Amino acid sequence: MITLSDIRAAHERIKPHIHRTPVLTSTVLNTLSSGNLYFKCENFQKVAAFKARGAFNTVYSLPYPAASDVEAAKGVATHSSGNHAAALALAARTRGIAAYIVMPEDAPEIKKNAVRRYGGIITFCEPTLAARESTLADVITRTGAVEAHPYNDVRVIAGQATATVELLEDVPDLDVVIAPVGGGGLMSGTALAATYLKPNIRIIGAEPELAGDAAISFRENRIALPMPPLSIADGLRSSLGTLTFPIIKEHVDEIVTVSEDSIVTAMRQIWEVMKIIVEPSCAVPFAAVMEGKIDVRGKNVGIILTGGNVDLERLPWQK
Amino acid sequence: MITLSDIRAAHERIKPHIHRTPVLTSTVLNTLSSGNLYFKCENFQKVAAFKARGAFNTVYSLPYPAASDVEAAKGVATHSSGNHAAALALAARTRGIAAYIVMPEDAPEIKKNAVRRYGGIITFCEPTLAARESTLADVITRTGAVEAHPYNDVRVIAGQATATVELLEDVPDLDVVIAPVGGGGLMSGTALAATYLKPNIRIIGAEPELAGDAAISFRENRIALPMPPLSIADGLRSSLGTLTFPIIKEHVDEIVTVSEDSIVTAMRQIWEVMKIIVEPSCAVPFAAVMEGKIDVRGKNVGIILTGGNVDLERLPWQK
Repeated sequence: MITLSDIRAAHERIKPHIHRTPVLTSTVLNTLSSGNLYFKCENFQKVAAFKARGAFNTVYSLPYPAASDVEAAKGVATHSSGNHAAALALAARTRGIAAYIVMPEDAPEIKKNAVRRYGGIITFCEPTLAARESTLADVITRTGAVEAHPYNDVRVIAGQATATVELLEDVPDLDVVIAPVGGGGLMSGTALAATYLKPNIRIIGAEPELAGDAAISFRENRIALPMPPLSIADGLRSSLGTLTFPIIKEHVDEIVTVSEDSIVTAMRQIWEVMKIIVEPSCAVPFAAVMEGKIDVRGKNVGIILTGGNVDLERLPWQK
Repeated sequence: MITLSDIRAAHERIKPHIHRTPVLTSTVLNTLSSGNLYFKCENFQKVAAFKARGAFNTVYSLPYPAASDVEAAKGVATHSSGNHAAALALAARTRGIAAYIVMPEDAPEIKKNAVRRYGGIITFCEPTLAARESTLADVITRTGAVEAHPYNDVRVIAGQATATVELLEDVPDLDVVIAPVGGGGLMSGTALAATYLKPNIRIIGAEPELAGDAAISFRENRIALPMPPLSIADGLRSSLGTLTFPIIKEHVDEIVTVSEDSIVTAMRQIWEVMKIIVEPSCAVPFAAVMEGKIDVRGKNVGIILTGGNVDLERLPWQK
């Protein structure tokens, strides 16, 4: 049970370390969508992703020094090749502790470099989930580091919830809030913050059809397995966790899915009109609006823009 | 003589129509440069360029209806293929008058479309300056439209000055302000506003070596001819005007030049680190900082980010 007090405490804990990101609007996109869209720009967050919120909350929640085995001094560890890995490395470095990151050896150079830039200690493994998990277990045994899960952790959920706290401070009269759904850390945090602060708000998740496991989980009331990693929205391929799923089931009103083409078109529209850089996963909620999957006509709609880490050598609309 | 009152009046005139753009900062770029950089984000302005300020001030300064020949009812006209053309079209449409835009027939599709999007009426001509000027004269004779020059016009200079008024409202303790120099509309407006509001501030212009005519003009105290149109910073290829040059000569402290490689590198750094889209011309002041041409160590430095109109099909760092 994560309370509003937990979320407020997380916010106070991470505030010195994260950006208060701006909320941007666009007349052009409002006209295109017939809604009033408020974009919470977590692409401007530290490490260019909302993941900084959960990672900082996790790292700064650890006792130090502590009598228990679970203490910060021995560092934190995760298996991830995405924004969570970079965020955890930065949070750990900021606190002066080690971050051990297990990554598949075939991860893109750009992702390895992001982790190295923030001082993360990388251990490479075979590119299978089994290898990632067993390698992480080895690292934890060897170092005594605390596992910092990318989403299935109350500290992470409370941290991600703070984006919506800020959004509702800046735009109190939202009718709808939309977030993308991967493992559900952001979605469950968004749902909790929105429910506590604005009980009548409509809470919607958006995910790619090709990674539509959360929509299935929601409909069938069980955690569906992840789909093959085909979607361009590489941050949204995970399945829901045992902590995130029940929160989403209880508080989210609807989960909608979008096509790959819609994601690329939406991403490009945000770049062209708003002049900001967002990654494919980040464009999924706006894609759902433009596909007509969410009724935003005349409504005030908050959209969490989740991240801006893109390989600028190759853009998805280029041949 | 453009006074502070003129600039304040321009600001009041255009405020209902333009964005108050944000000032962004970046810890990473501050560390890289050893300065405290404050980026005034005119890439988020209407038509994604500061040019909206001068164009709106020009269009809304025209008497309507008027007894004189110079009146708004007959529309406005210019020859331009850049951001000024789009800005003038939008300003005219907003006031409900016509904008006649003379463009070379070989202008990129993307620029023609920008003008069409805002309702500009295009007349094509041969791609020479002589053809552009004679075609514009024909259009003006035929329509009675008022010429709206892209930079050599007191209304434009006063309009562009308002970006610096806002910047100094948001960050009053700037030590230095840097703007790119093309025809000098922004540079002269920046210099006037900064001089009036903060007499001891250092005012610096930045331009590409391959379009370094303003640096020559400044040094040799005469308006140098434009260089061949080779620089990637296509917004900065014009020579100074008879109105902009004397203001720059009197109030600007220094004009520095940068290489083409520096411009591309600086543009990419701004994209990667700040997650915002800027066009090559816009990256020139930051390029000058990163080339070490401007001493920013420990100083508070305002940089006008001028625009974000880029062809997303082809980025300058891509082969």
